[in-house]
Amino acid sequence: MNIRFVLEDGREVHEAASAGEMLLAVARRAGVPIDAPCAGNGTCGKCRVKVAAGEVAGEVSKHLPKEAYDEGYRLACQSEIKSDLVVDVPASAFAYQNQIRVADFSSPGAKEAFDAMRARVTEGEYAEAGGYAVVQATLSEPSLDDPQADRERLTGAAAAALGVEPGAVRVSLAAQRKLPVVLRDCGFAPYLLVKDGLILDVAPSEAEAAPLGLAVDIGTTTVSAVLVDLLTNEILAAASAGNAQIRYGADVIGRLVESAKPGGLARLHEAVTRECIGPLAGKLCEEAAAEPGRIVRTAIAGNTTMAHLFLGVYGNHLRLEPYVPAFFSLPALRGADVGIGIHPDAEVLLAPNIGSYVGGDITAGVFASGIAEKDSLSLFIDLGTNGELVFGGSDFLMACACSAGPAFEGGEISCGMRATDGAITSLTIDEQTLAPSYEIIGQGGQKPAGLCGSGLIDVICELFRCGAIGANGKFLMKSDRIITDEWGLTRYVVAHPEDSASGAEIYINDADIDNFIRAKGSIFSAIRTMLASMDMDADMIEDVYLAGGIGSGIDVAHAIGIGMLPAIDPARYHYIGNTSLAGAYAMLASGKAAARVQGIADGMTYIELSAFPGYMDEFIAACFLPHTDSKLFPGGI
Amino acid sequence: MNIRFVLEDGREVHEAASAGEMLLAVARRAGVPIDAPCAGNGTCGKCRVKVAAGEVAGEVSKHLPKEAYDEGYRLACQSEIKSDLVVDVPASAFAYQNQIRVADFSSPGAKEAFDAMRARVTEGEYAEAGGYAVVQATLSEPSLDDPQADRERLTGAAAAALGVEPGAVRVSLAAQRKLPVVLRDCGFAPYLLVKDGLILDVAPSEAEAAPLGLAVDIGTTTVSAVLVDLLTNEILAAASAGNAQIRYGADVIGRLVESAKPGGLARLHEAVTRECIGPLAGKLCEEAAAEPGRIVRTAIAGNTTMAHLFLGVYGNHLRLEPYVPAFFSLPALRGADVGIGIHPDAEVLLAPNIGSYVGGDITAGVFASGIAEKDSLSLFIDLGTNGELVFGGSDFLMACACSAGPAFEGGEISCGMRATDGAITSLTIDEQTLAPSYEIIGQGGQKPAGLCGSGLIDVICELFRCGAIGANGKFLMKSDRIITDEWGLTRYVVAHPEDSASGAEIYINDADIDNFIRAKGSIFSAIRTMLASMDMDADMIEDVYLAGGIGSGIDVAHAIGIGMLPAIDPARYHYIGNTSLAGAYAMLASGKAAARVQGIADGMTYIELSAFPGYMDEFIAACFLPHTDSKLFPGGI
Repeated sequence: MNIRFVLEDGREVHEAASAGEMLLAVARRAGVPIDAPCAGNGTCGKCRVKVAAGEVAGEVSKHLPKEAYDEGYRLACQSEIKSDLVVDVPASAFAYQNQIRVADFSSPGAKEAFDAMRARVTEGEYAEAGGYAVVQATLSEPSLDDPQADRERLTGAAAAALGVEPGAVRVSLAAQRKLPVVLRDCGFAPYLLVKDGLILDVAPSEAEAAPLGLAVDIGTTTVSAVLVDLLTNEILAAASAGNAQIRYGADVIGRLVESAKPGGLARLHEAVTRECIGPLAGKLCEEAAAEPGRIVRTAIAGNTTMAHLFLGVYGNHLRLEPYVPAFFSLPALRGADVGIGIHPDAEVLLAPNIGSYVGGDITAGVFASGIAEKDSLSLFIDLGTNGELVFGGSDFLMACACSAGPAFEGGEISCGMRATDGAITSLTIDEQTLAPSYEIIGQGGQKPAGLCGSGLIDVICELFRCGAIGANGKFLMKSDRIITDEWGLTRYVVAHPEDSASGAEIYINDADIDNFIRAKGSIFSAIRTMLASMDMDADMIEDVYLAGGIGSGIDVAHAIGIGMLPAIDPARYHYIGNTSLAGAYAMLASGKAAARVQGIADGMTYIELSAFPGYMDEFIAACFLPHTDSKLFPGGI
Repeated sequence: MNIRFVLEDGREVHEAASAGEMLLAVARRAGVPIDAPCAGNGTCGKCRVKVAAGEVAGEVSKHLPKEAYDEGYRLACQSEIKSDLVVDVPASAFAYQNQIRVADFSSPGAKEAFDAMRARVTEGEYAEAGGYAVVQATLSEPSLDDPQADRERLTGAAAAALGVEPGAVRVSLAAQRKLPVVLRDCGFAPYLLVKDGLILDVAPSEAEAAPLGLAVDIGTTTVSAVLVDLLTNEILAAASAGNAQIRYGADVIGRLVESAKPGGLARLHEAVTRECIGPLAGKLCEEAAAEPGRIVRTAIAGNTTMAHLFLGVYGNHLRLEPYVPAFFSLPALRGADVGIGIHPDAEVLLAPNIGSYVGGDITAGVFASGIAEKDSLSLFIDLGTNGELVFGGSDFLMACACSAGPAFEGGEISCGMRATDGAITSLTIDEQTLAPSYEIIGQGGQKPAGLCGSGLIDVICELFRCGAIGANGKFLMKSDRIITDEWGLTRYVVAHPEDSASGAEIYINDADIDNFIRAKGSIFSAIRTMLASMDMDADMIEDVYLAGGIGSGIDVAHAIGIGMLPAIDPARYHYIGNTSLAGAYAMLASGKAAARVQGIADGMTYIELSAFPGYMDEFIAACFLPHTDSKLFPGGI
């Protein structure tokens, strides 16, 4: 049978299929991007597509209301193919994968944190010259009497320009490939990019020979990157994109399960390299009007699972007792090893992992946060698809992970989304009318598309404050905005269809609230357990640094209000942005910083929370608003 | 329009085409292998296919007789598409590309030469240990109390096994990728392949960790390779295949022209790497029951054009004055650079070029021939698609190339073919009846498929001896075997259709004879010119070493008889086989030999024949049977 997928940009993809196949499986085979954060179990509703012609077997469900069903909408993961099909794939079906946005160090808090760190690696104690030189060489022109080959002609002239012996100069294959044409384009006076005697690049102009660096944060949900001029360490361009692996599952466990299937490791490896980081690097270079082949150094930070999948290393043992990674550090990688289209001889630095669930995003992030250099005690919290905590200072550092799930990046929440354009990032609710007021990420004037992590905190906190939900997260009242559907699910309507970007209602239901409460409970109980393991409590924390995908919009008072973060003075909380990306930038800019990240990893103690007997009790107690022990939150909301 | 290609093995390839497109162009786009040694000019007739359904515009021609036309045969390069088509592609249409045959050092002469050289690199002055070690490491098993990562666990144990510091041990990415599964397969006691502290491979058994090497001769027409055990230097398997680039032209000039077109360099690069050497390495490894990833060292020898195209380096300047290569030598290449599926960290050695038309096949070949170590004067002749000559000994070496064209490998000859199964390799003609007797390469009992280089020498020499052709190569008589066709071409029938393997007549016509005479004239005049440039003549040559694709079947007396080789004692001629491949093997087996090949290249003087005023006169004089100056061939035939 012939399946024709029509994407919103008009692009069409045809794929042959057999009757009885699931539509999502066929889309995956055809490379059609359809999100499936629940890994195709029918429990997230993100894979909704419209069958414009033909027939599939599939039913109305919690995630597919009757009105949508009647309009032809179906969940791709629950639709068995019955005939030839024409399938419209709306942009909402691949929002996680597709939406590219400028990664920023510009949001409040993040900018100051980044600038302070940048000063450390470019002027301060970690400043270090990169060793790159751009020099012009002047070659004699070949003739019938002087038919010397281009390379040998070049190495002689380069040695003279560098003041070394010709034997000490090597030519990378990438430079060799460009050499014949470049020499003749520039009258045999090319500019050379040289490091340690290796000619990495040849170009007709000085500007085109300048070395570029790429820093990448591989998040489970979002991949962010910056392009850097390695001579000045200036950021030339920044961007982020959804991690294309999301079509194989929302969290690291789902990805690891998929990776252990036949061909699965290759699929996940390709998804993050060729389909995600490669195009992202291409886009950054396009902005900077440069070829990706000019990227001669890259630093990558990601959690342990992401690091394994990025390198195509089998990682399934990460999720199986005794939870052992295939590597902590992997030095001396080259561009040709990693398949993202950069210079084949590029140095590839990978931020080191320290355990199965505390990876390079955290070791790089701790460097960026600066807590490892402080005498006082700090708590570092990275809230992305996974939650990781680091506590300590220059004397010691302890780290643990909590299985918060993807709720903080909008995953497994009906109308959840990443903190990208259209996301509701903060919200208040009128106590009388229950009508919301909200702020949206974007240029202004547009309608909301969904709720990101900080918006979710606000809506739950506000519903609780208004008495619309109880301590267990269940709805306590009905109104024109609090509606129970035929499945028994009660929802709060944030935006009516006519007020939303997609024309579909934006809401949060009691299942979403329950998911989010478990996520926040996981964070809070992890903090309590880690501190308790050292006979410490939250009062001893001087500063709390919040990092990660939850975004700068987070209202700390609200997060304390729902019992997600300890009830200490909100002024001691600092949002410091994407520290994984900032740390990767530091490694890119300075070999000393990269060595320090390795030193931080070597000195960090990894705690396995599940090994602590009290952890599960702490977790259960934290799965209330704000907590079963209200003394922990004396201030109320 | 829809074009369906049906290959002889039943495989089908569908490709969309527009009316007016040429069938050969569509086949190329679809990746259907169809030979076109004349680069699609309609002058070789090798691209003959059968249109089983549909219509093309195309006519009867010299290379497509009426009978074949009426049966539906067409030349793909001359057929304009008019409708949907079903096209049968017979094996004969890709004989150059497809036929794989064991590359041998076993033919008379070649075996002795190879064995003598092998002794030099394995026991004699060039013998050298490869530096590879296979050791077993014993690791502790991980547990919840000892969750050390696999890599860090390995480097500790490997350092202990090797007696070095853990910091001195590195793990290649390829080994890292296998590590998690191998460790658990072998009870944490893996065998390691180590060189210079780098763990190249991990395997559950000692045998599976042994290092493999690949030596490759990239000929313009034929690519040959041997797989070698690098611990013992034993040859484990040998094979050859047609160079898949042949569909873009028979000789280096055609390839260079194609490479300068948009996308052309990538096409030629892919054709020789992914389509030819990659599968060849795969086949050799299959024979040896090993993975291609175990190939950790490779040595490649080819002419200058082949070296450029193999590495994807723009080579068009080779054919443009002042004829300058992009490189002579290119050291320090890695497996990941070359795209042939071997270990990414494999050492890649490329035999050095010395000029635009004297390449690594000759520098490696001269090492293999041993002439560079001799006090006496030798002439080394490599007769493949190109002809190259080296004259000298331990005191000096001079080299030149002659544009002999592909006739010695059967190219641009109506019924010419490579020296593979079915080729007529030697032939005599009865003076009375003009009936031929011939020998065929193969198992015996089969019918001939065509004429290879040595067979062509024989048939021309015999026709001349019998008085059937004159000194200018034109036919002097008619008979039942000497027939003039409607195009005015006269041919000698070597085998009637019923006596040939394909059912098509095997013949040689006056155009073929003319082509071959120009090829042999090119060789002879080059020898004369080179010797004359030093005031020497052929009598001063102690030994002549014949190498290359012309094959061991060459009858030296016949080659002298037609004026191709100097008239010196045939006992001074030695056929020594594929010296390019033998030299590549030497480089693989010994770093000292590789250094010596570079030394030979550095010391060799390259002569541009066209710069000698007398060369063109010499060439014209040599384009007769045997020569205009019969005193040069006092013995007659």
